[in-house]
Amino acid sequence: MVSEMSAADAFSETTLASTRVFDGRLLKVRVDRVRLPAGGEHVREYIEHPGAVMVIPVLDSGALVFERQYRYALRRVLLELPAGKIDPGEAVEATAARELREETGYAAGFWRHLGTIHPCIGYSDERIEIFLARGLSQAGAAPEHGELIEVCELSLDEAIDAVAGGAITDGKTVAGLFWAEKVLKSGW
Amino acid sequence: MVSEMSAADAFSETTLASTRVFDGRLLKVRVDRVRLPAGGEHVREYIEHPGAVMVIPVLDSGALVFERQYRYALRRVLLELPAGKIDPGEAVEATAARELREETGYAAGFWRHLGTIHPCIGYSDERIEIFLARGLSQAGAAPEHGELIEVCELSLDEAIDAVAGGAITDGKTVAGLFWAEKVLKSGW
Repeated sequence: MVSEMSAADAFSETTLASTRVFDGRLLKVRVDRVRLPAGGEHVREYIEHPGAVMVIPVLDSGALVFERQYRYALRRVLLELPAGKIDPGEAVEATAARELREETGYAAGFWRHLGTIHPCIGYSDERIEIFLARGLSQAGAAPEHGELIEVCELSLDEAIDAVAGGAITDGKTVAGLFWAEKVLKSGW
Repeated sequence: MVSEMSAADAFSETTLASTRVFDGRLLKVRVDRVRLPAGGEHVREYIEHPGAVMVIPVLDSGALVFERQYRYALRRVLLELPAGKIDPGEAVEATAARELREETGYAAGFWRHLGTIHPCIGYSDERIEIFLARGLSQAGAAPEHGELIEVCELSLDEAIDAVAGGAITDGKTVAGLFWAEKVLKSGW
């Protein structure tokens, strides 16, 4: 049923004009004028994003490595899995290894790509590539300038309980934890 | 362990100035100058969002109600659970009922709030309130002007398989489906 996707033509919007209206240090905002499939024109506003990775680091003990980080947009500290943006020209596997090392200090012996999610389909072209990392060894963290990160460990069950109880609300982390549970307990 | 959150003071950033740099039809972008907890200043750029709801509609047959919708930022049709923005002053329960009705035509007899996720913590203050809806009856859809939505049904297992196979990539839908599986199969 899922494979019977509708003909994209019946839904597609044609770009008539495209303007970058904000070019910040972090955010790039674009406004496009489009032709709707049924005719008529509309305006589409969205963030241009280079894409990101998220890593689910599994220690030999079975515990997962998390971070606490202040997220200014939400004015609070969030408990999340390690993640970061893909640098220009960087292979996603390299981004995953780099971000894991920079933020937590861990190097991983084994990597597995689990899948891709789009966190914000209404107004961003961002994609997040999800990786599982095993065979971890501590090599020393090197956070980027201005990143204040506290590393901590939770068992998978503690983390899933934290989702149920509302202590973990980061969307990518919620999706990643449930996915990790499928892999680690159900053989996905 | 999760409850032992770090003192927020050690992480908090103080707002020194705040400017709305883009005021679009959909996107509102703000740039703040902040004082970092360790001293020094930094710039934070983010989207101001009114918040949203996502509904997991469960038919009496056990099937879930999905939508196919073209998402311009990604230039593709995505398979997703019904969702929409909270109107000014609107109670989230009212948003959930309104969006379900507008987008799929269903009215629900029973509602349950499952939890809250933050889809885009790096650059948006958006939150999504997740609801499970049961006791569905068809009353006729009334999409907003310009919304082109195709409604379809998938069993929970088909939907979870679609996540594993990459046919469902919308982050909120991935998180919501795994959450629904916990509720419907594991008694969350």
